[in-house]
Amino acid sequence: MSIRIGILGYGNLGRGVESAVRQNPDLELKVVFTRRDPAALKVRTEGVKVLSASELDHMQDEIDVLILCGGSATDLPEQTPKYAGMYNVVDSFDTHARIPEHFAAVDAAAKAAGKVGIISCGWDPGMFSLNRLYANAILPQGQDYTFWGKGVSQGHSDAVRRIPGVKDCRQYTIPVEAALQAVRNGENPELSTRQKHIRECFVVAEAGADTARIETAIKTMPNYFADYDTTVHFITEEEMARDHSGLPHGGCVIRTGVTGMDGENQHVIEYSLKLDSNPEFTGAVIAAYARAAYRMNREGASGCKTVFDVAPAYLSAQSGEELRAHLL
Amino acid sequence: MSIRIGILGYGNLGRGVESAVRQNPDLELKVVFTRRDPAALKVRTEGVKVLSASELDHMQDEIDVLILCGGSATDLPEQTPKYAGMYNVVDSFDTHARIPEHFAAVDAAAKAAGKVGIISCGWDPGMFSLNRLYANAILPQGQDYTFWGKGVSQGHSDAVRRIPGVKDCRQYTIPVEAALQAVRNGENPELSTRQKHIRECFVVAEAGADTARIETAIKTMPNYFADYDTTVHFITEEEMARDHSGLPHGGCVIRTGVTGMDGENQHVIEYSLKLDSNPEFTGAVIAAYARAAYRMNREGASGCKTVFDVAPAYLSAQSGEELRAHLL
Repeated sequence: MSIRIGILGYGNLGRGVESAVRQNPDLELKVVFTRRDPAALKVRTEGVKVLSASELDHMQDEIDVLILCGGSATDLPEQTPKYAGMYNVVDSFDTHARIPEHFAAVDAAAKAAGKVGIISCGWDPGMFSLNRLYANAILPQGQDYTFWGKGVSQGHSDAVRRIPGVKDCRQYTIPVEAALQAVRNGENPELSTRQKHIRECFVVAEAGADTARIETAIKTMPNYFADYDTTVHFITEEEMARDHSGLPHGGCVIRTGVTGMDGENQHVIEYSLKLDSNPEFTGAVIAAYARAAYRMNREGASGCKTVFDVAPAYLSAQSGEELRAHLL
Repeated sequence: MSIRIGILGYGNLGRGVESAVRQNPDLELKVVFTRRDPAALKVRTEGVKVLSASELDHMQDEIDVLILCGGSATDLPEQTPKYAGMYNVVDSFDTHARIPEHFAAVDAAAKAAGKVGIISCGWDPGMFSLNRLYANAILPQGQDYTFWGKGVSQGHSDAVRRIPGVKDCRQYTIPVEAALQAVRNGENPELSTRQKHIRECFVVAEAGADTARIETAIKTMPNYFADYDTTVHFITEEEMARDHSGLPHGGCVIRTGVTGMDGENQHVIEYSLKLDSNPEFTGAVIAAYARAAYRMNREGASGCKTVFDVAPAYLSAQSGEELRAHLL
């Protein structure tokens, strides 16, 4: 009996979840829900229904886990609490500063409904967060470093796209190489947000748009750009298609710390990702957490969870016996 | 109210746990238990009692978690089930092939007593196992690689020390550099156990011992050496003290895998450790899992657990709110 998956939103992330579900024999994609015209949407997996999001009112008997693939700026703050009141849900909410309020809203709805909502799944927040937690728990005396890129940030690109006059955007996050080397050398540098990364935006503006105003709107956007040195390039649609069609990403989480009665021994823990496709990798993480949401709910759990609250074994299709025999 | 810790066995690992406990304000080392003469043992932390292991029969009101710091070959298979019947326990059992039977024995004892026993904590098994599980759950179509070293394996050194005629041993595990490079290059090589690592032993033999017999006993030892190319050097006690006093280690877990409707995008997940002191790092992992054992038991859990069964949040001294606000 497969775990029946629904997807709301069929952009890059929705398609990434779709291809991830296809790799997991115990998961089955049943329906893609859209807020647009269902007749206009063609999904790549055979036999999958496309329905209007309004149909979610009455699909509880056909979907075990609903995966919310909207954006963090405006979609998920509304959608995740709403649908956590009807379904087990998973999202990839990635506005770090607003996670506590998002958690509270989803928790209230999911608890009332007896469902599980796992928020902020992906690689950051997600796998990077997990590695920060594990490394901090092991080495309480130490320093954390997270570097992203070089790669395209979907959240930041989406945020720019929502600025009036912007037709398209790719935002690249780029580590400051000297900072990364200092960390790996064990120098434990103190680095401001600005000293660690630069942000580079390639923007297609609508005809007649005020590009100076767009550039200011980007550079001053709270949470996303205000704390960084950002460069903005206005390019044509042709240049965008030719030079910026991929969605690679990556990065690393490093913690350096000491042990011993006098802190005499040093340790370096590093977790790194090199990703050809950010949305497909994020979708793959989400698919594993969809399995966890279903299992935890079947065992009686309810409320909002994050990657911190999910025992790793729930993510794997293998049994406890198989995991202990082969992966431990 | 601190979590009260007992340690059984005060070798390298016991001392590593001691220094880790010292870094965690919510943990307090109360007693070191020894099977030798307690009067002969001096611990480095002020105010810690040293008692005979036989006193463990009646210390349940003074110890919240007992950490078992013996060896995997003969100590832990007996000790962990025995004491899981009286205490929450944590061990670092690292004979991969015998984990299923060890789990079963600890599970039966811990369930009967209403205690939690977390086995096989450390970095491998332990953090490396976790990273194998997470990476497999995310990228079901891919390949796993684990490389160790260059570093001293305590388990392998202990195993050699138990051979009659051996006075001391340091065993270095060394990755085969060409194999590691091929993996990082994304070549997905098929590698036998022998093609990935070599093992190098520095042995101090007792006077008059049959070194040829010792060398054969090492090279043919199942699980530990039989599947590797092993070199054995006999050295003096002075050479051992001069050249091999540290216990560095490290290594990496790499999974390469594909996503997409046709597997068209490749990803590399790598977790790596550079450790000045293997026993102190292992002790630091164990200390975090001792916190988890105590908390899970307080919530009503019992039975044997591994790192796969422990939700990450249990490892951290921070609350869920703090973790979500600062680490997610």
